[in-house]
Amino acid sequence: MAPGAVETGAVTSQIFPSDVQQTLDLVGIFVFALSGGLLAVRKNMDIFGICVLAEVTALGGGVMRDLVIGATPVAAFSNLGYFSTPLAAGLVVFFLHPQVERINRSVQTLDALGLGLFCVTGTAKAHDYGLGSVASVALGMVTAAGGGVMRDVLAQEIPSLLRWDREIYAVPALIGSATTAVLIAVDHLTAATGTTAALTAFLLRMFALKFGWR
Amino acid sequence: MAPGAVETGAVTSQIFPSDVQQTLDLVGIFVFALSGGLLAVRKNMDIFGICVLAEVTALGGGVMRDLVIGATPVAAFSNLGYFSTPLAAGLVVFFLHPQVERINRSVQTLDALGLGLFCVTGTAKAHDYGLGSVASVALGMVTAAGGGVMRDVLAQEIPSLLRWDREIYAVPALIGSATTAVLIAVDHLTAATGTTAALTAFLLRMFALKFGWR
Amino acid sequence: MAPGAVETGAVTSQIFPSDVQQTLDLVGIFVFALSGGLLAVRKNMDIFGICVLAEVTALGGGVMRDLVIGATPVAAFSNLGYFSTPLAAGLVVFFLHPQVERINRSVQTLDALGLGLFCVTGTAKAHDYGLGSVASVALGMVTAAGGGVMRDVLAQEIPSLLRWDREIYAVPALIGSATTAVLIAVDHLTAATGTTAALTAFLLRMFALKFGWR
Repeated sequence: MAPGAVETGAVTSQIFPSDVQQTLDLVGIFVFALSGGLLAVRKNMDIFGICVLAEVTALGGGVMRDLVIGATPVAAFSNLGYFSTPLAAGLVVFFLHPQVERINRSVQTLDALGLGLFCVTGTAKAHDYGLGSVASVALGMVTAAGGGVMRDVLAQEIPSLLRWDREIYAVPALIGSATTAVLIAVDHLTAATGTTAALTAFLLRMFALKFGWR
Repeated sequence: MAPGAVETGAVTSQIFPSDVQQTLDLVGIFVFALSGGLLAVRKNMDIFGICVLAEVTALGGGVMRDLVIGATPVAAFSNLGYFSTPLAAGLVVFFLHPQVERINRSVQTLDALGLGLFCVTGTAKAHDYGLGSVASVALGMVTAAGGGVMRDVLAQEIPSLLRWDREIYAVPALIGSATTAVLIAVDHLTAATGTTAALTAFLLRMFALKFGWR
Repeated sequence: MAPGAVETGAVTSQIFPSDVQQTLDLVGIFVFALSGGLLAVRKNMDIFGICVLAEVTALGGGVMRDLVIGATPVAAFSNLGYFSTPLAAGLVVFFLHPQVERINRSVQTLDALGLGLFCVTGTAKAHDYGLGSVASVALGMVTAAGGGVMRDVLAQEIPSLLRWDREIYAVPALIGSATTAVLIAVDHLTAATGTTAALTAFLLRMFALKFGWR
């Protein structure tokens, strides 16, 4: 159990086997970092700017969540893998950004996977630290979308999350987080149901992209 | 006493009876949220952007204060009323924004009330957690004005707090916070004197609006 | 030892005698604050905006570091000197900004000194709180550069740290922080070696300015 976590009788944030969870986290972090790095390229930033935006995009949401719930030192800085993965993504973008741009559709798919995963694990972690259902849902959404908001603020853009002319991002995160909170409330959050919640958010986001839901 | 608070012999942040305090807090949060929602409308954001800006404006200052003093999980996420009130304000703005714009003067009046209230309670809460007088005054100002700064950053505007061509906002907050710190220092912070401090800040802000003090 | 710090057998962040360290900290804070105040002047802000930008620039990096490692209440608000120094710098800018602009080169020199000092002390403080080497280096850089990023965000500019057309700032901070982490790892961080690390970062930054390294 995480130090400082409130005893709730069960560790709900660890819904997958530890190594599966870690792998999924790193995949989500990597693709979020790619989106940050690509925006940096479009803004004519250099290698360092690319890496900073990659770090902020990938880890910002989780850092906000951990600060709010008081989980310090925050996970992003106490887990070496979390910290170094965005640097790797930044280097990939720097050397291969024409190729990465070309597979933008794939990046969006992976980003949607990260969205699905992080809204579920963010909600569960907030609940572990004693937050109520509504607050846990809010923090699940912060985990999934907060890094992207910080990315846009640093790059001097109106956060795409807040714009009406972009495909919906928050609603899938909301549904994924709320499903997770319900599953926790009825004591049925398992690897299977958690995956279902994450997939629901993922698919909603993919449909939004495909059909231009705004 | 809040968990984690330093024992100071008396709970100074609770200067009103609990239900009065809660009501005042919610009123302040609601009107701050209205101002966030209205800016979102002007920036052509959708219902979700409106609700996010309402949340950030209403709760941002208190969240910053709680993070700095180490009061986690922060109050905005552990009190359901604090969290859901901005959502209600966001819905009001979404469905009624022409009407809300028309009563803009009334919104500014309520916003000034929120300013007065939050600079007093923010200063008192910081003192409860063991901060010194000057730091408590600074955090009172952060509580009152921090949410507005975050609102403007997310909407890509220079924070109106920092602009010379807007009516003064910080000076009333400073005076309300400093009065509170003096009252705490001489051990005379009560519901009556706290209200006086809040009213002083409120009236200064109203005069600034009326006479265009900049 | 700071409350909450992990016992590491030695207090590494206190690498200079206490009064020397305090003096150096205040000098660094003062010059960082000058750079914030000058940007506020260029953006036509009033005395209050100048003081806010001075505070944010000077203390923002340290506040971010303290939040991430859980060192609350954060040092910037529990040490009166840290808080009041940027106010003094703000007043200096307000009354003397033509003169301060004229000695801009000197300000840049002092700013480079602050950069060198803060990347070293920031890295050491993060290590004191139990962070690993890579995370400590990252937090050293955050300490040195975070305030400048917050300054630029509030003033609605792309952070100069992220721009390719500005002299390098992050690389000197990275080298100063990394040197410090290595010194800690081999248990050789002393006043002498810490000063050397800080001077290395300082000189790299000065060369970057002189020769236009980008």
